[in-house]
Amino acid sequence: MKQYTKAMKARPFDIEAGKMIAILNSNDAKELGVLPLDRIQISCPRTRKKITCVVDTTETMLKENMAGMFKDVQKKLGVRRGEKVMVQPVAPPESVSFIKKKLDGHALSEKEIRAIVHDLGQNKLSEIEAAGFVSAVYFHDYNLEETVAMTKALSQDGLQLKFDHDKVLDKHCIGGTNGRATMIIVPIIAAAGYHIPKTSSRSITSAAGTADSMEVLANVSLPIDKIKKITNKVGGVIVWGGALELAPVDDKIIKIEHPFALDPTGQIIASVMAKKASVGAKYVVIDLPVGPDVKVHTRERAEEMAKKFIAVGKKLGMRIEAVMTNGTEPSGRAFGPALEAKHVMEILEGKRFDALAQKSCELAGVLLELVGKVKKGKGTDMAKEILVSGEALKKMQEIIKAQGAYALTSFDVKYAPFKKIVKAKTNGEISKINVKKCAQLARMAGAPADKKAGVLLFVEVGDKVKKGQPVLEIHAENKRKLGLAVEYAKKDRVIQMQKIILEKFS
Amino acid sequence: MKQYTKAMKARPFDIEAGKMIAILNSNDAKELGVLPLDRIQISCPRTRKKITCVVDTTETMLKENMAGMFKDVQKKLGVRRGEKVMVQPVAPPESVSFIKKKLDGHALSEKEIRAIVHDLGQNKLSEIEAAGFVSAVYFHDYNLEETVAMTKALSQDGLQLKFDHDKVLDKHCIGGTNGRATMIIVPIIAAAGYHIPKTSSRSITSAAGTADSMEVLANVSLPIDKIKKITNKVGGVIVWGGALELAPVDDKIIKIEHPFALDPTGQIIASVMAKKASVGAKYVVIDLPVGPDVKVHTRERAEEMAKKFIAVGKKLGMRIEAVMTNGTEPSGRAFGPALEAKHVMEILEGKRFDALAQKSCELAGVLLELVGKVKKGKGTDMAKEILVSGEALKKMQEIIKAQGAYALTSFDVKYAPFKKIVKAKTNGEISKINVKKCAQLARMAGAPADKKAGVLLFVEVGDKVKKGQPVLEIHAENKRKLGLAVEYAKKDRVIQMQKIILEKFS
Repeated sequence: MKQYTKAMKARPFDIEAGKMIAILNSNDAKELGVLPLDRIQISCPRTRKKITCVVDTTETMLKENMAGMFKDVQKKLGVRRGEKVMVQPVAPPESVSFIKKKLDGHALSEKEIRAIVHDLGQNKLSEIEAAGFVSAVYFHDYNLEETVAMTKALSQDGLQLKFDHDKVLDKHCIGGTNGRATMIIVPIIAAAGYHIPKTSSRSITSAAGTADSMEVLANVSLPIDKIKKITNKVGGVIVWGGALELAPVDDKIIKIEHPFALDPTGQIIASVMAKKASVGAKYVVIDLPVGPDVKVHTRERAEEMAKKFIAVGKKLGMRIEAVMTNGTEPSGRAFGPALEAKHVMEILEGKRFDALAQKSCELAGVLLELVGKVKKGKGTDMAKEILVSGEALKKMQEIIKAQGAYALTSFDVKYAPFKKIVKAKTNGEISKINVKKCAQLARMAGAPADKKAGVLLFVEVGDKVKKGQPVLEIHAENKRKLGLAVEYAKKDRVIQMQKIILEKFS
Repeated sequence: MKQYTKAMKARPFDIEAGKMIAILNSNDAKELGVLPLDRIQISCPRTRKKITCVVDTTETMLKENMAGMFKDVQKKLGVRRGEKVMVQPVAPPESVSFIKKKLDGHALSEKEIRAIVHDLGQNKLSEIEAAGFVSAVYFHDYNLEETVAMTKALSQDGLQLKFDHDKVLDKHCIGGTNGRATMIIVPIIAAAGYHIPKTSSRSITSAAGTADSMEVLANVSLPIDKIKKITNKVGGVIVWGGALELAPVDDKIIKIEHPFALDPTGQIIASVMAKKASVGAKYVVIDLPVGPDVKVHTRERAEEMAKKFIAVGKKLGMRIEAVMTNGTEPSGRAFGPALEAKHVMEILEGKRFDALAQKSCELAGVLLELVGKVKKGKGTDMAKEILVSGEALKKMQEIIKAQGAYALTSFDVKYAPFKKIVKAKTNGEISKINVKKCAQLARMAGAPADKKAGVLLFVEVGDKVKKGQPVLEIHAENKRKLGLAVEYAKKDRVIQMQKIILEKFS
């Protein structure tokens, strides 16, 4: 490889790109023999630092002999504006050739997968290279060994929670909706004497994520050592995983998959299992809701995924149980952080026992059976006992206190002040409730940014309702948002929901 | 789709990104319900302009309620720093779903391909979406109809040369090396009475592109109307195609293919044919050098490509002949813009008739047969006649003058002043000459940026040489570069060349 080196002047731009990118005038690029997306090494003789960047070229933005760089690059080099730097072409990292290998349909070794994950983590691959990798996996998927290798690489690349025993349990829901079963399962499992350090996500397009709902009750942004300490003390936490740097490369891969909604099975499994491995979980229940409006559409697909989860778990020394659940209906009647949190607390307080409570006990029961606490077939009963006895509530309040309590009971959880009840206009029967449309309505009312805003359903599928009977209630922080939500509920575009819930009433 | 709109403050960044990208604080993105790589519309109430951008998010770069935008976006909106803009999520362009369709292995319609090319041209697709498209084509390639549709879409998306007759000829070389047969073929064809408006590329990794060599003789950066005028007047031009906006999207696709060296056959063919269609060519000869160090490695691959070129041409009303040539040796003895230009002029002046001259006459002959000027099998003879009679030289000088002459004869072309002759150290026979290594050596001497720098070979494969006999000559603009080249020629890493040319001598 040619090793031509050119002296240039540093030209920093005041912007953080989050990527190691350098910009050269097209003529300089030609002189160096590099094309856009090739790599150069920039070194600063004064600071004796050097860095490898992906090249972009321009004909207008930069004059010749200037090495343009974003803040990230400038900081790492410690270089000043106008200072002399040395620029030379360098070969792409080896991982680019591994990506090409996968593009060509060949399976990757553990070492190769580790190199790709490492370079993604270090921002050493361009977006185009990263997209090439994601496309390759979409086409060829992973075999079992590759899935295991990807799981290990993803979890080992980030921080890891480590416990001195293996009684660490966890749960995960693939394409979940609303309801927050997690906030019932975690205290049941912790009350049963196990560790369950649960990291959750915030909402992106739904009305609330588990982290958003839990944040109504307590602080969810905790550092990793605090999470370990609380788990050791009270048995469980429910925190936001977003800022924790557990398997951080997973988030980068998900970002790239997003535009085409690419979700190769192997990558989904590695992604979930890596996060479970990162918190040291040894017993995991995977909730697979099946339905036309959720991620997994058919029983066949759910079964295929279940088998793969179990196989990967085996290779990693983890015991996995995957459970198909009903994804055709909302898994709770509330949509919005506070509304869902209040609903969960009411279940823990013994004030209601509905489908969400039942589902939570079944999933917790699976975990209790898996870890050997109880005989097969008796897990749900034990979970219910822990719930109805009030032990789960007590444990939940310990967890909330340990995380810095905001609200300890359902009484402490308030709804947004402006509300509107939507009533049935005729008699009839509820035939379908579209979860996505409910979430959308809650978002229009302000959720999840307005924590107390959202939607409460008074009915479920199969209910017979009478004219004038309330079917749902919208809560919002101000009249404008309430008006927006009500207006949307009336518009054709949202009528999908009205058609379904209200077609016999509105 | 939700239509939540948020008022924000414009925060322009002083940098041209060449892409329509907006930057939002992660919290604002969450409030709007958009993920990185989703799209938002930004509108400015004052200027009444609006624009769709791909979203990137940040937690550090921007505070909440700021809509970050690069210069491109700011200019189009005409917005001032701090001014109020309205931001709302919008759906991705339809072309993203067409890309997904191709990713899933389905053939695309002409309309769908046109939409993708249009959106690539308008920078409406993110790099990741563009990379997804290129990967999809790499996996599934195009069928004949898709190749034809891509060719049309690429050429119609850019400027087009139009002539009022169909006697427009052209040639193209797939993965060519050195030698510049184009600069011999164009004057032969123009002298025979046909139009041949040849657009050429500059060097990227070779010692010179045709545009670089022609630029030693004349101005190659001409606007499209001038190209048409000169072609109508003298029959031909040899210009740089880079700034002409002929099939501009092709360049974008090639850029994305580059990191993985992806080159699906259908895309190569569409790329070449689009540029030919853009200049109005009706008769085209495709030169396919075959050899281990050039783009096409086997006869089978060359035959497959030849058939596809001919089939696509038929659908577009173009007559194509594809010719396999020997790609195992340099197609000329010179490397570097001026050295290659001088060599070509010496052939046109009748001072030498070597392998390059023979190849040029054969390719020109194919064109003369294709257009019906001469009976099959007699084309080469006619081309040679035009060459040896001096008609081609006369025509070349007309072309050079029309393009603003810098040099009219081989005498006017000078080499760089510092030179070093490399001699054979023992007796022996030349077994192989590695074209890539020759080009690299010329680049070390300064080519193509230093137009007069380069390498001249005195031998060809099969030549018997004696100890002390010159085998090659290096020219450079200064002692430092000459020293660099000589030093590299001695180093192990460049010794590949010595091993090959010089293994019996050094």
